[in-house]
Formats: sequence, C-alpha cells, structure tokens
Amino acid sequence: MQLRMPKILQTEQAIRPFTHTTPLIRSPYLSRLSGGDVWLKLENHQATGSFKIRGALSKIGRLTPAQREKGIAAASAGNHALGVAYAADALGGVPADIFVPATAPRAKIDKLSAYAVTIHQSGDTYEAAHQAASAFAAESGALEISAYDDVDVIAGQASVGLEIFRQRPQADMLIVPVGGGGLIAGIATVAAALSPTCRVVGVQPEASPAALLSLRDGVAYDPFDHQPTLADGLAGGFGAVPLVLARDLIDEVVLSSEADMRRAMFTLIDQHQLIAEASGAIATAPVLTRQIDITGLTVVCVLSGGNVDTAVLRAVLSEFS
Amino acid sequence: MQLRMPKILQTEQAIRPFTHTTPLIRSPYLSRLSGGDVWLKLENHQATGSFKIRGALSKIGRLTPAQREKGIAAASAGNHALGVAYAADALGGVPADIFVPATAPRAKIDKLSAYAVTIHQSGDTYEAAHQAASAFAAESGALEISAYDDVDVIAGQASVGLEIFRQRPQADMLIVPVGGGGLIAGIATVAAALSPTCRVVGVQPEASPAALLSLRDGVAYDPFDHQPTLADGLAGGFGAVPLVLARDLIDEVVLSSEADMRRAMFTLIDQHQLIAEASGAIATAPVLTRQIDITGLTVVCVLSGGNVDTAVLRAVLSEFS
Repeated sequence: MQLRMPKILQTEQAIRPFTHTTPLIRSPYLSRLSGGDVWLKLENHQATGSFKIRGALSKIGRLTPAQREKGIAAASAGNHALGVAYAADALGGVPADIFVPATAPRAKIDKLSAYAVTIHQSGDTYEAAHQAASAFAAESGALEISAYDDVDVIAGQASVGLEIFRQRPQADMLIVPVGGGGLIAGIATVAAALSPTCRVVGVQPEASPAALLSLRDGVAYDPFDHQPTLADGLAGGFGAVPLVLARDLIDEVVLSSEADMRRAMFTLIDQHQLIAEASGAIATAPVLTRQIDITGLTVVCVLSGGNVDTAVLRAVLSEFS
Repeated sequence: MQLRMPKILQTEQAIRPFTHTTPLIRSPYLSRLSGGDVWLKLENHQATGSFKIRGALSKIGRLTPAQREKGIAAASAGNHALGVAYAADALGGVPADIFVPATAPRAKIDKLSAYAVTIHQSGDTYEAAHQAASAFAAESGALEISAYDDVDVIAGQASVGLEIFRQRPQADMLIVPVGGGGLIAGIATVAAALSPTCRVVGVQPEASPAALLSLRDGVAYDPFDHQPTLADGLAGGFGAVPLVLARDLIDEVVLSSEADMRRAMFTLIDQHQLIAEASGAIATAPVLTRQIDITGLTVVCVLSGGNVDTAVLRAVLSEFS
C-alpha cells in the first residue's frame, strides 16, 4: 500500500470547494517561551471544528453511484461523525447512518442532529457502537467509513500538510496530535515529499500511548486498552494503514500528561483567545513544557480540533485563572 | 471632511502586509434561529485580537520622517493600545508611549508589555489616562493617535468592509458594534460605495447609547457619561469625525442588554468555539434575540475583537452551562 503526492494533490483539488484553508498564525508567547518560532495551524476553525471533514470528503467523494445509493455508516459521536455528516451533505446528500454510544454527551448529539443523518444510539461504549455500525453496514450494503484506517481518508487529511508548507515552507518541525494515526500519516507523507529535512513529531496522551508502542514494535495495536483521558479524540488504537504508510516518516512520538493538556488548553485561551479541545491543544504541550528543545527552529503545532464541552472549558478556566 | 474609496483602497494596499484577511464563516445555528443567512466576520482573530491594528497601521504609516522620530502616544489599556503597539513595531519601530489607567487589568498590561512600547500608568480612569497622553504629546511633540476620531484611522478600519464585500458581495445587512464609531464609519462608507442597498446597523450596549443619541441629535456626544458595561470597548462617546462621515450611511442603531451580550458570548463559544469579547459578541445579540427581523436576508455580524479576561469567560460559562 502506498500514498503518493499525485493522489494527495488531486484529493486536495477535489475537496477544496468544501473546506477552509485554515489560518496559520504565529504564537509570540510560545516563541518567546521556547526560543523557537512557533506557529499554530488552526484546524480547530475548520468547518465542523476539526480536520476530519477532509478525510471524509476524500472518501465519500470517491464513491461510485451504486455505493452512494447504498449509503455510508460511521461510528463516532465526535469529530469523525461530524466530518462524515458534513461531507455526506456537502457532496449531494449521501444517506448516512451514524452510530453513537448511548453515553455520548447531549451537546455532541445536538451538533450532529443539525445534519441530515440518521443517528443510532447503540451500546454503552464506542466499541459497541463500532460493532453496531459494522453489523449495519454488512446487512445494508452501506460503506463503513473509518476515521483513520483507510488510505483515501488519509489522502484527505494530508491536505493539512500541503497547506502548512504553502503557508510556512521553512518549517523545521511539525508537531501533530496522534490517535488512530490518520492525520499524522497524511502530514508525514507530504513532509517527506516536500521538505525531507522537516521533522514530524507526534504527541499523544500518556493515558493512551498506542502510537508510541505501535511504531516501536512495528505492530498496529488496535483496539488498544487505554486509561481515561480528556483527549477523547486520541484515545484508542493506532491503525494498520497509518503504520504501513508512516512508520519510517514519523521521527518521534512524545507523551503528554492530562495536566499538561489542560494547561495547553488554558494557554491557548489566555494568550490567543483560541478554543482547542484537549486532543488539539496537546500539540502545543511539548513546547509549553519544553519537553522538546526547539531553540532556533520554526515549528508548526497542528490544533486539530476545537469541539469541547463548555463544562470542560469552565473547569479548565477555573483551574488556572 | 470626506472619506472616499480611492483613499480606502490605497490604505488597504498599504496595510495588507501586516494584517490578516480574517475569515468570514457561516453560522448554521444563527441562520436556523433567525431565518436569515448569517455570517460572522472574525476580526477577533485579527493580529492582536481586534480590528484596531488596521486603523493604527493606516495612521502610523502616514507619518513623516520627522513625526516618526518624535513618536506617538495613545491612551488605552485595551485593543487600541495593542493596535498602536503592534503597528508601531510592524512599521519599523516608531517610539510609542501608551497611557493606561492604574486600574487596568494586569492581563491587559502583560499583553501590552510584549511590545517595545513605554507604558505609563496614569490616574484611575481612562479620562485621566487620556489627559496624561495629551499632556505628554503636547510637551514631547509626539502625535496622539485617536482610536476613532480621525479620518486616517477610519480609512484603515474601512478595510474590514472591503474584505466583507469580497467574501460575501450579496450581503443585505451588516451588523457592526459601535463605540466611538470608527469601525462603523469605515464600513458604512465602503457599503455605500460598493452595495448601496446593503443596510448598516450599529449595535451598542444599553449602558452607553452615545451613538444612538449622537446620530439622532446630530451632535457628537463625546465624552459621554455611561453606565458600567461588560462591553468596555464600546463604552463612552461617539466621535465627531464618525458623525460627519457616517451620519447618513448608518441605517439604524440598536441597543443590547448586558444579559444578551453575555448570552451572545456563550453562544459563540458553545456553537462555534469562538471567543469574542462582549464588545465583539454584541454584533450577534440582535440576531440571537430576534430584535431585528432578518428573515431571508444575508447578514454579516462583525466580531470586532476577542480579548477577554479568562475570569470573564469563566463567569459567562458558569452562567449558561
């Protein structure tokens, strides 16, 4: 399996009418603190609040007429679900069945309900929702869309990397949140092609170090038994497809504590009036803690998403201010 | 006194290297709620967190070499101060003396301190800081830069309007926060030239209705004795220059309560993960309350700034979530 630049460039061309080119802004605060030149890629301000629409548009845009008619399925109550719902709508109204655990927060289901999708509440865990989605897909002929373990999805996420190198070609290092690995696999593929000396660093929560272990052992640990984490978007396994595509292209994976993620969220609000969810803010945590030495380097931190419950924001603000 | 399009276009050209073209994003939530097609102009994501850099860049960019040498002065601890500090730095390091009341919040002074400016803490009120700035300017020969009562400043703020009509030429109505009147005067001038049927509506806090009264009476009430308001950026008088320039171009001014502004702040966080200060969020308040009927109209709300203390955010989140 391979992912090459022509496919990524064609994908970007195809999805661009439905995505924002998100801003890349400089962080004077993090630059001063770290001695580097630190930039933030604002995928938290992407449509639906995360980069996930890029992969969903890429995948759904490739369906045949027969596949479109049978529709699509996805399991998620988070950014992937919103991405799939948005893409299904944007691309002409592909029928979409979204499976969410019955325990999903009301706020997330409300956001999802704004789209013309059928929402199924199934089981108490994301695993159970995944199984329900797969069973539904098998029976109905709908195509289940993975959030990360699919080369077409990854080709869409790669467009984040294209934008970054257009906006700041001199980047020396990209710091990317890692969960299933779709985003980092896409970005690392672009970095390897456009700027081979640029380092690609993944960050994941200490509570769910699947990428770190998968890349070390060369085995995709998916599913992965994780501890609770505020970075719900990054919890769980690292995909087999991202492992194949990006194993040699990711320079390092570092871990971030829950406290450091919360501090990163607070810092982005306090210094930049930016709301990022823990899974997005984590990209700045290793800079904030100086866990990585970036002195003299131009560094881009990818704020991958911004969908965070107001109760979490309130708690973070109360902790630090 | 007049402000014509050639000057506005030249100003935009001159300041563009130092400003972001801020995104204009659609609000599905406010659109559904109101029956209109509602868009948000994100000047809260402008450099320094507000549109004020545009006017400051316009003004400082016009200084003669002799004036640059004598430097500039401004009274403000808020967005105007940050705008002047940013512009003085961006335009090659013009000496800048900023006068802030001793009562200004620590967080604002910290942000200002990141720039190469001289900060003077003078008196307990903004009035006192203004007097100190004027006295300093008179003595030193520095040029005091008004936040709104200056046609060159207004020519810079007008660039917000140019961007809006490029991004959404079909806009039927612009809703603009009003304090001193610099922003709305600039935007209204552009609207009159580019889209004469587009309505321009100002919003200001009930606690400080200077624009409403000034436009009604044809008298610039400045200074203006106001009640306390969370929208500190909009409190106070309406300028004589904005009155002359925009009296016939502003269709209406509506007032917003403190509670409605807080709800607007919360809604932007909850629905869009956007942090706007009360003075910026106020642009969405008349849509949220349905105070203005915008059924069937394409409406742009200008979120003019995002600099808000984390303690205020925490209070707003606690009130509604």
